[in-house]
Amino acid sequence: MHGYADNKEAHLRRLRRIEGQIRGLQRMIDEDKYCIDILTQISAATRALQAVSLSLLDEHLRHCVTDAIAEGGAGADEKIKEAGDAIARLVRS
Amino acid sequence: MHGYADNKEAHLRRLRRIEGQIRGLQRMIDEDKYCIDILTQISAATRALQAVSLSLLDEHLRHCVTDAIAEGGAGADEKIKEAGDAIARLVRS
Amino acid sequence: MHGYADNKEAHLRRLRRIEGQIRGLQRMIDEDKYCIDILTQISAATRALQAVSLSLLDEHLRHCVTDAIAEGGAGADEKIKEAGDAIARLVRS
Amino acid sequence: MHGYADNKEAHLRRLRRIEGQIRGLQRMIDEDKYCIDILTQISAATRALQAVSLSLLDEHLRHCVTDAIAEGGAGADEKIKEAGDAIARLVRS
Repeated sequence: MHGYADNKEAHLRRLRRIEGQIRGLQRMIDEDKYCIDILTQISAATRALQAVSLSLLDEHLRHCVTDAIAEGGAGADEKIKEAGDAIARLVRS
Repeated sequence: MHGYADNKEAHLRRLRRIEGQIRGLQRMIDEDKYCIDILTQISAATRALQAVSLSLLDEHLRHCVTDAIAEGGAGADEKIKEAGDAIARLVRS
Repeated sequence: MHGYADNKEAHLRRLRRIEGQIRGLQRMIDEDKYCIDILTQISAATRALQAVSLSLLDEHLRHCVTDAIAEGGAGADEKIKEAGDAIARLVRS
Repeated sequence: MHGYADNKEAHLRRLRRIEGQIRGLQRMIDEDKYCIDILTQISAATRALQAVSLSLLDEHLRHCVTDAIAEGGAGADEKIKEAGDAIARLVRS
């Protein structure tokens, strides 16, 4: 089981809403909506995706990383390196 | 007609692919995939959304803003202000 | 003369303040301040740098790009491509 | 002592280099350099600041958060919440 197990339904709900936003974007382009309005909606979808990331990452630190540290050994080091890499990808995307 | 009219199909294709990525994320969570792998996929979807934004924005400058400037008058000022606001939202999201 | 000529003093003032923030960060590390407080100050300096970027970019669109479009010809195309590349670097950094 | 104690000199060196970049930006504006070249240098300084953040954050996880988890108790929870908030500020700036 992973860190996000307790909030699976909440994450799925958020992702379904984001899927709806992406379909809404296709509709906007299909109906020749104004570019700036489309850009505003893309920013909203991007921020919603970031919120999912930040919440998954928080649960990852709170469970997977915490467990690995409590167990001690080389596993903890590896988990922290992995989390650091994921944070870097998030910050740079 | 807006700036992106010539590339409507290309934008729709990219957004359909992003919609598929978002559905893939739901499947990953549903199948209890590893948090870090999910985060990697979210970063990929975020970058794909940004690429759509940058391409829409480029076309907006190239057509809508260019036309408004060529026409002259207060319309150009407003269009540039609007584009600047959209860029700021993009940079901060 | 470039787009930002009218606001040179304002930009210099902002950059001097950011330089002060960077010196403050060195002092914080030198005095062993708490990591999280240092991170908060780095976020503030990053946002201040972004604000300078967005304001330079706005003036660039408002002057350099607008002039190139008004003159017509291939120069306008090149200026818009250059601005688009700068926006992409900004969004991705 | 904080997480970054072992790398104090490396962080100070990086921040002094960033301070130099910010002074270089002032010189560029003072000498009326081209807007786009200034924007390129701001993106470079922003990325350098982000690299300092990511490295401080990594050390924070590796030391402060790890120690709090090893000690157990409510302190660990608080440290993870604090780290999560710092990551969110970083991602959104």
